[in-house]
Amino acid sequence: MSRFAGVFPYLVSPIGADGAVMEAPLRELVEHLIGAGVHGLTPLGSTGEFAYLGHAQRHEIVRIVVEQARGRVPVVAGVAATTTADAVAQARDYERLGADGILGVMEAYFPIPEAGVVSYFTALADATGLPLVLYTNPNFQRSDLSLPAITKLSHHPRIVAIKDASTNTGRLLSIMNAVEGRMDVFSASAHIPAAVMLIGGVGWMAGPACVIPRESVRLYELCRAGNWAEALPLQRRLWRFNELFAQYALAACIKGALQIQGFAVGDPLPPQAPLSEAGRAAVAEALSSLGSSLGSSLG
Amino acid sequence: MSRFAGVFPYLVSPIGADGAVMEAPLRELVEHLIGAGVHGLTPLGSTGEFAYLGHAQRHEIVRIVVEQARGRVPVVAGVAATTTADAVAQARDYERLGADGILGVMEAYFPIPEAGVVSYFTALADATGLPLVLYTNPNFQRSDLSLPAITKLSHHPRIVAIKDASTNTGRLLSIMNAVEGRMDVFSASAHIPAAVMLIGGVGWMAGPACVIPRESVRLYELCRAGNWAEALPLQRRLWRFNELFAQYALAACIKGALQIQGFAVGDPLPPQAPLSEAGRAAVAEALSSLGSSLGSSLG
Amino acid sequence: MSRFAGVFPYLVSPIGADGAVMEAPLRELVEHLIGAGVHGLTPLGSTGEFAYLGHAQRHEIVRIVVEQARGRVPVVAGVAATTTADAVAQARDYERLGADGILGVMEAYFPIPEAGVVSYFTALADATGLPLVLYTNPNFQRSDLSLPAITKLSHHPRIVAIKDASTNTGRLLSIMNAVEGRMDVFSASAHIPAAVMLIGGVGWMAGPACVIPRESVRLYELCRAGNWAEALPLQRRLWRFNELFAQYALAACIKGALQIQGFAVGDPLPPQAPLSEAGRAAVAEALSSLGSSLGSSLG
Amino acid sequence: MSRFAGVFPYLVSPIGADGAVMEAPLRELVEHLIGAGVHGLTPLGSTGEFAYLGHAQRHEIVRIVVEQARGRVPVVAGVAATTTADAVAQARDYERLGADGILGVMEAYFPIPEAGVVSYFTALADATGLPLVLYTNPNFQRSDLSLPAITKLSHHPRIVAIKDASTNTGRLLSIMNAVEGRMDVFSASAHIPAAVMLIGGVGWMAGPACVIPRESVRLYELCRAGNWAEALPLQRRLWRFNELFAQYALAACIKGALQIQGFAVGDPLPPQAPLSEAGRAAVAEALSSLGSSLGSSLG
Repeated sequence: MSRFAGVFPYLVSPIGADGAVMEAPLRELVEHLIGAGVHGLTPLGSTGEFAYLGHAQRHEIVRIVVEQARGRVPVVAGVAATTTADAVAQARDYERLGADGILGVMEAYFPIPEAGVVSYFTALADATGLPLVLYTNPNFQRSDLSLPAITKLSHHPRIVAIKDASTNTGRLLSIMNAVEGRMDVFSASAHIPAAVMLIGGVGWMAGPACVIPRESVRLYELCRAGNWAEALPLQRRLWRFNELFAQYALAACIKGALQIQGFAVGDPLPPQAPLSEAGRAAVAEALSSLGSSLGSSLG
Repeated sequence: MSRFAGVFPYLVSPIGADGAVMEAPLRELVEHLIGAGVHGLTPLGSTGEFAYLGHAQRHEIVRIVVEQARGRVPVVAGVAATTTADAVAQARDYERLGADGILGVMEAYFPIPEAGVVSYFTALADATGLPLVLYTNPNFQRSDLSLPAITKLSHHPRIVAIKDASTNTGRLLSIMNAVEGRMDVFSASAHIPAAVMLIGGVGWMAGPACVIPRESVRLYELCRAGNWAEALPLQRRLWRFNELFAQYALAACIKGALQIQGFAVGDPLPPQAPLSEAGRAAVAEALSSLGSSLGSSLG
Repeated sequence: MSRFAGVFPYLVSPIGADGAVMEAPLRELVEHLIGAGVHGLTPLGSTGEFAYLGHAQRHEIVRIVVEQARGRVPVVAGVAATTTADAVAQARDYERLGADGILGVMEAYFPIPEAGVVSYFTALADATGLPLVLYTNPNFQRSDLSLPAITKLSHHPRIVAIKDASTNTGRLLSIMNAVEGRMDVFSASAHIPAAVMLIGGVGWMAGPACVIPRESVRLYELCRAGNWAEALPLQRRLWRFNELFAQYALAACIKGALQIQGFAVGDPLPPQAPLSEAGRAAVAEALSSLGSSLGSSLG
Repeated sequence: MSRFAGVFPYLVSPIGADGAVMEAPLRELVEHLIGAGVHGLTPLGSTGEFAYLGHAQRHEIVRIVVEQARGRVPVVAGVAATTTADAVAQARDYERLGADGILGVMEAYFPIPEAGVVSYFTALADATGLPLVLYTNPNFQRSDLSLPAITKLSHHPRIVAIKDASTNTGRLLSIMNAVEGRMDVFSASAHIPAAVMLIGGVGWMAGPACVIPRESVRLYELCRAGNWAEALPLQRRLWRFNELFAQYALAACIKGALQIQGFAVGDPLPPQAPLSEAGRAAVAEALSSLGSSLGSSLG
């Protein structure tokens, strides 16, 4: 089963006022990110507003991203559902569209016992021939993957990695110790990517990489080379973006930052609010001071 | 604008293994509840697993319930969405199907500022000619209706009531004081219905009323008559059902209890678990001891 | 074992800048409250800032309150500790000072399993010959009394009542059903006292009763008489005080309100802040509109 | 102002059944830890059960530790209080006893606004001539140090470091970026020490270092030398102890582990429970497998 590694930006989902996917800016963003050297693309993560999109919109986004990527980098498409049946249907749809992997999310309304969590992800992994990355975000989701559940799932041949979006970095080390190499660990924007790389992580899947792809790839390469003396100063400068994306609503923040950079990706779906004036100013300032400090070396 | 009052059971959603709505048991349940004297019906509440159903399933459930009710009692159909556009579309669909009111829920993934909450519910109230009941459940939903937001919304001519499913009964009195009669307050299963009636409530919308409809109606009538001396002993006995429905997962518990009573409503949608053996035994015992204590007076 | 019932104001703890208990305003407050008809006095509750006082200060406060009360109403003194040994020592001290009962609080830093909670309160009940009222406040304390723990403790002959300061009124009915009369239930300021009286409560222990003692006693009498038609309009007016005491910090709010009424009780202990200007204005307005609406009937 | 760095074990507080400090095992533990090469000692942290001890017990513990350390390593004594006056008095007492620094904790019952938090720690830093280490543990304390409050406090000449016991490692990087070197950052047991060292930490203050002091010092030296290739495998093995100390109650776990190692430090103060049989077995197994894997290199 193929495995993934490196920087996988979480793509935003550009949707027009009529509810239609805006194809041009999405293709442009994909092209830009591949040009910046990212190692993969992840449509329909949290930043991609999966919780706000219908099936037709989700289908369209995966179709466009796969088509535009043209196999240059793997596309790991987000599947999020409350029922096993819906998750399986989504995954099969994305496999037919040519996705290279599935990022699996379990939504819930009532608490689900561990056996149910394991059965959901097992069915999702069995549904297609694609590798599956588990995704858990205890801050926003009404379910969580416990360490015993993760350990059980790590024995499935097609469950290849996990992205844990808690802020608890120690938990990642516990996962690594428990799964003994059967599963890789990706950092999320709530962790310090360089610290996760140090303890054995294989990269990160996160919204900020949409906005600072070139710098993210540079940081990844320094970490991979074990060049911590150069990695850390860069990490400290890039951390400001993770702070901003936690402070302002994730999707609003990335869509606003991309607009500042010239991508007409629109605003988050109502009733979500667009990035506030204060947020826009903070992001602009962070981009500008990053540009002046890194411009020469990364240009 | 017509207003609602009395006992409105939250209907379960009987779904077969193939994902199709099971029409016969749903019709049978509607008939049974109307026969028991309930004052209205609420499909697609929490107990109705709205978070687990697609649009086609939801449409079908409202269609069947409205058709079977034949205008004998009002049908207040649940609308739950993350986007304003989706909520408006659902509400218009249910209006076309003949629903008498909308129970509005706002789902969220990222936190939504108050202005967004108010705009969502205002758009929902503007979408149809039907009265709208606000529904907030801070335990399960990722959004909440603040007192200032509720007060603002109470000025809309079609927002007629609120059902607050927190356990905080004092909050209901604060709402009543703030809305000055422009909006009615329904109890949920997390409050003591008789206590909510005492402070000015107009009834309750809750899952347990599906299982003990006759006793619920009797309690409502005693409260309406101000006969607290008889209401309280009955309330104390019925409270056991609210405890059970909080202890076991809501939908699983009501579906299990209805099965015990002979309704073939099936189990909750996977990966949710059916009512456990322990839960089934506890519900059976509660039904049996209620039967022996009330049998003569309510038969 | 004697039991308690009625309105028990939570007394504030007037402490000077030098850390000494200010005897005169405390005696004056006790005299005022007894004159207003309250049924008992509770020094060293949450409102009494028990968490901010040393043993010498606590001793002094109980000494003064007992002395000033002169047996006219029972004094139920708060005992709060993290260790069993400290709780037992405090209770014996207050018994020697002449207290009529103990209000027992368990503080904790690490979570305590249920057996530890039961052993703590059992030791406290065994420590003196006084009746013990359990006090649990899941919002502020790092421990909680579960329903099974409460049920176990209700069999102790000297554990006569419980005051639950959660906002969950349904929990009080579950307690009443579980303890089958072996223990009485008091309302806290987070519940609607009239609603707790309706379901079988015996009164309330709360900070607001320090500020509106006469109105609180009047409400209690109406509830006791089952005169709900008159009780409810009064309850709705008094509820504003419970809202204010939740919105502003409890001790700061009551001390500020008493200052407005002419009692020189000082401010909460630093680094706690005194009641803000906005809080002071809101309390003054509530007192003034209560005065104009009730002045004639309660004067 | 002198600064601290390295491994600072959180000492347990051995207390007899009569409430007296057990001097011999405490002196023995101090001697053992200094012999193992630790860089400092921290009595009266969370692991030291500060929340369960009276002033006389706390005084005695600091006296013994300072005396036994004889200046070989710095002693940073924990001060925890709800009032500013109490904190100041404790700090002055420990300065007189010869402590080399203060670890400051703010306890709270009601929420404290940021200005109060800043005034508390400022008064504590002003109270003595000793350097102050801020300590915040949002899991157990009812107060928290916000990033703006920390930044303000970092300008005080005697506030030299912070120990943040949240699990959020990214927050540590935000603190480092905000305080620009005016304050050092220590890891707690809830973070991965090697990861905190990588991003710029100066060491760790934690309970597990009481039990594995030699291995902790070895890990610190590898991190200091930038020898991440050797540090990480060691960190992965030691992490098991941090997991155990999170799973079982902190003080109970360390006291139990020390008993296994032959230190007669007694059990946590009642009603806290001693380490359970399961916990004892898990700790024994972790110690044994650590011994066999490291025995040769660390012996």
